[in-house]
Amino acid sequence: MSGSKRREVKRLPKRGHYDQETLYRILDEGLICHVGFEVEGQPFVIPMAYARDGDRLILHGSVASRLMARLAIGCEACVTVTLVDGLVLARSQFHHSMNYRSVVAFGHARPLQEDKEKRQALERLVEHLIPGRAEDSREASREELNATEVLEFPLDDCSAKVRTGPPVDAKSDLLLDTWAGVLPLAPTPGTPLAAPDLDAGIGIPDYVSGYARSTAEEEASIPAHE
Amino acid sequence: MSGSKRREVKRLPKRGHYDQETLYRILDEGLICHVGFEVEGQPFVIPMAYARDGDRLILHGSVASRLMARLAIGCEACVTVTLVDGLVLARSQFHHSMNYRSVVAFGHARPLQEDKEKRQALERLVEHLIPGRAEDSREASREELNATEVLEFPLDDCSAKVRTGPPVDAKSDLLLDTWAGVLPLAPTPGTPLAAPDLDAGIGIPDYVSGYARSTAEEEASIPAHE
Repeated sequence: MSGSKRREVKRLPKRGHYDQETLYRILDEGLICHVGFEVEGQPFVIPMAYARDGDRLILHGSVASRLMARLAIGCEACVTVTLVDGLVLARSQFHHSMNYRSVVAFGHARPLQEDKEKRQALERLVEHLIPGRAEDSREASREELNATEVLEFPLDDCSAKVRTGPPVDAKSDLLLDTWAGVLPLAPTPGTPLAAPDLDAGIGIPDYVSGYARSTAEEEASIPAHE
Repeated sequence: MSGSKRREVKRLPKRGHYDQETLYRILDEGLICHVGFEVEGQPFVIPMAYARDGDRLILHGSVASRLMARLAIGCEACVTVTLVDGLVLARSQFHHSMNYRSVVAFGHARPLQEDKEKRQALERLVEHLIPGRAEDSREASREELNATEVLEFPLDDCSAKVRTGPPVDAKSDLLLDTWAGVLPLAPTPGTPLAAPDLDAGIGIPDYVSGYARSTAEEEASIPAHE
């Protein structure tokens, strides 16, 4: 299947987006991706941490992982990132939906070989998780680098799908005596929990106390599409 | 590959869980799943709404969807649900992690044929999204049922993977002057947004204003595993 064919959003094509800005904003906001590949005809879908680094994603795992080994040989793979922005309550069960933003990327992973590029990629993973943290944490040792498989996954064949806005009901349902609207949802930080073995003199860094992830409210400026 | 083999948690086996209570709690809390399958050797990973109904998942989509058609013929599939409960900040970049709960289910989907079972399954989807909503919304018409492919996916070959608790640092890192701990994250409802075409006399239902999804704090009672 050709790249341009597989990435095309077939269902509800008006929800499809291919511009880099939309794609990268979704990828920069997500915390986990779901990586799909097959082994002996059986599809696997595995949740993984990731980072976007320019025009590629960074994935990592133990060198002992059979799944990382499978990806590292460059098998056909699909990496999907999905953000849930809200529940869409229509008058009819049929028109219930979710507001969401997702990216689906197709391609093959490639293992990073050089210590320097592996170390930089692992820093990107920490920075993606929580910006400001990389310089505040000990970088990987030689032994840790050796124990870690680090993969890059190109972003040259991907598309986004976005739903925003209110429910779209059939005209004949608009007189029903049923509340309709959107309940926004966003991943929200709770109170930071210090490690039990943390020195009591070490305070919570600003990048933890001020942590924010969701940009869903800004995204609501994207025109509504059912 | 046999069922018992593919579901086995190979990496970090102490994070693996196979008991029904753990599996069902994760599945009941999740809002979306990621469905994996392949078409002409290309893996696809697609986000979908779902519901758990007893010992099966319910999936649905348009009868015009090529992806639903592919699943409906009973291709090998993998359905994964992942909840992110927190960011785990260790002193070393290497030991950074996330607290999460995930379920991976293997099997084949089967299309529901009877109007009655399709209608009940669609009600389950709405109830899964927002408990209390099904009886408050118009059930599917014959035309809507005809336009909707509804699939059941068995839960007889699945496993959970769970990480909870604080970071686990190398002893040699414990004296570093770096904050370490967990930043909890949970999907949190915002202010409900009434549809622009809603009659102003219809108030927000209790199941919307009191909506809560995350049980991550209760889950923290599961013993910690790195």
